[in-house]
Amino acid sequence: MGDEPARPVGAPNGQGGLPATIEWAGDRVRLIDQRLLPGELRVVDAFTVDDLCDFIATLAVRGAPSLGAAGALAIALASVRGDDLDGALEQVTATRPTAVNLAWGARRAAEADDPVAEARQIVVDEIDRHRAMGHHGATLVPEGGAVLTHCNAGGLACVDYGSALGVVRAAHEQGRRPSVWVDETRPLLQGARLTAWELEMLGIPYTVIPDVAAATVLARGDADLVVVGSDRIAANGDVANKIGTYPLAVLAERHGVPFYVAAPTTTIDPECPDGAAIPVEERDPLEVLEFAGVRTTPDGAKAFNPAFDVTPASLVAGYITERGVSPTPPLD
Amino acid sequence: MGDEPARPVGAPNGQGGLPATIEWAGDRVRLIDQRLLPGELRVVDAFTVDDLCDFIATLAVRGAPSLGAAGALAIALASVRGDDLDGALEQVTATRPTAVNLAWGARRAAEADDPVAEARQIVVDEIDRHRAMGHHGATLVPEGGAVLTHCNAGGLACVDYGSALGVVRAAHEQGRRPSVWVDETRPLLQGARLTAWELEMLGIPYTVIPDVAAATVLARGDADLVVVGSDRIAANGDVANKIGTYPLAVLAERHGVPFYVAAPTTTIDPECPDGAAIPVEERDPLEVLEFAGVRTTPDGAKAFNPAFDVTPASLVAGYITERGVSPTPPLD
Repeated sequence: MGDEPARPVGAPNGQGGLPATIEWAGDRVRLIDQRLLPGELRVVDAFTVDDLCDFIATLAVRGAPSLGAAGALAIALASVRGDDLDGALEQVTATRPTAVNLAWGARRAAEADDPVAEARQIVVDEIDRHRAMGHHGATLVPEGGAVLTHCNAGGLACVDYGSALGVVRAAHEQGRRPSVWVDETRPLLQGARLTAWELEMLGIPYTVIPDVAAATVLARGDADLVVVGSDRIAANGDVANKIGTYPLAVLAERHGVPFYVAAPTTTIDPECPDGAAIPVEERDPLEVLEFAGVRTTPDGAKAFNPAFDVTPASLVAGYITERGVSPTPPLD
Repeated sequence: MGDEPARPVGAPNGQGGLPATIEWAGDRVRLIDQRLLPGELRVVDAFTVDDLCDFIATLAVRGAPSLGAAGALAIALASVRGDDLDGALEQVTATRPTAVNLAWGARRAAEADDPVAEARQIVVDEIDRHRAMGHHGATLVPEGGAVLTHCNAGGLACVDYGSALGVVRAAHEQGRRPSVWVDETRPLLQGARLTAWELEMLGIPYTVIPDVAAATVLARGDADLVVVGSDRIAANGDVANKIGTYPLAVLAERHGVPFYVAAPTTTIDPECPDGAAIPVEERDPLEVLEFAGVRTTPDGAKAFNPAFDVTPASLVAGYITERGVSPTPPLD
């Protein structure tokens, strides 16, 4: 914490001294390998659709808006290599089923006359959307307020600036002195590893907690609001987000703490009527049975590892998008 | 899972081919080092009160009933070594503040004419209590029922047989074919490491889940009941137990799944009027900031690491003790 000046995280083209979360680099896609953070900040290159799909599947790049950019950039790669775009579109879309942005970005690039230009435009547009979103959401953060968040919805997840963390970041830039309770976010610790890393560099005070300790923080009245991102918002306002979001929303309601979802309108899926229609990805049980290659469970153990859960719209106090804060998701 | 016959875990004097969870061994206290499970089953000896307090503080032995035995056995050690018993009593009691059994066992041994005989009697009595408790609680498990549990309330926590897991074990012995959802229990993974290990050896089917995935299991209707242990039950029925128990109880109520607490009457503290009066131990932040010695968070990160939370009596469907199942804790 402390003396470091606030720096943008994942700013495109290396603004602020840090590499971009994900960007087009001439003939390849360059991205921060989020699997290695916070221990190592390494940039890796994808030369083919297969390369990039492997980075997506293994969470080297993750977070719905960053996946939207990744999907478009994968099609850009396919186009410069002369691959079949329909096949690439199908391959990319199947890589992770829950985040609607992945399919959205890939489709938009595939339908464009110039997929590379379209993918680069999507990157720029997401950055603009997230800065606008943060500006709107910051008004919800009281002076000196404590925000509780889950998973990583920062610049790493959102190409730049962040959705939930963008709200915190804008409040910080406005001098509201926010602090953050960071759910560690099992099993892959995106909160402990990535959100903490972003906040550390931004100089915003934060405290990491085991996910289930959020209930204690809320019960003590130590959080003023909860803000999370989303991987897909259904037309009725139900929200798919990282596993653990739903119990957090239930606890927030019980303790009278408002629960907000911050996401660009590109995360809203008007074709999806409600949460029951959102496919929930189940990931490898080894993510639960091992840690960093160390077995933590007995031989023979099974695990259930859903990557997401669905929070009903009734638990959401408001949706923070680039258009403002609204009680229902802006669909038009 | 599979073909192994059901074997007692931590049976005293090596019954069933396994060492005892904790026992008096002539001039020392011998116990399973629970920090090393499931990777290694190692028995260690405490020769002094300092030795045993160190094992207690670092969770080589944990779980309220096992801590009751450990507290009594520490006083037994002090008595055979000619230590000051009042000083030993104070030292033992201060080692972990939440579990009432620790102070209870130590005090009972300190007040006895023969602390060694008293400590050994406490060990035997806990075993009897837990077998009776399991017998009573098993009636709550439907044929083929799925029990969701948090942390470890098995033979390792309870000298033998287990409280919450004792209920499952008795149901298994009665041929009810229970299965178990095992919350991994961050930060120290007592569920993934210890509960899974016990169930594996008992041949009872189980599935490990990240703690927050319990909400998904409950929302899907995939658990018939929740059973947990306790570290202290206040006179009004409020329950201190491992961090994560309270949000689990809230989610169980929301989804209409009965939430039971299984604990011997030695865990009830009639002097404690309600949950607000229970001291909650905060443990080393490094338990959250690192895993197995590997740093998972950025340098400079802080963590909040409460070891327990308090579940209000209103969320508890029943208390399973050696006396039966009752809607309020049996106080007389």
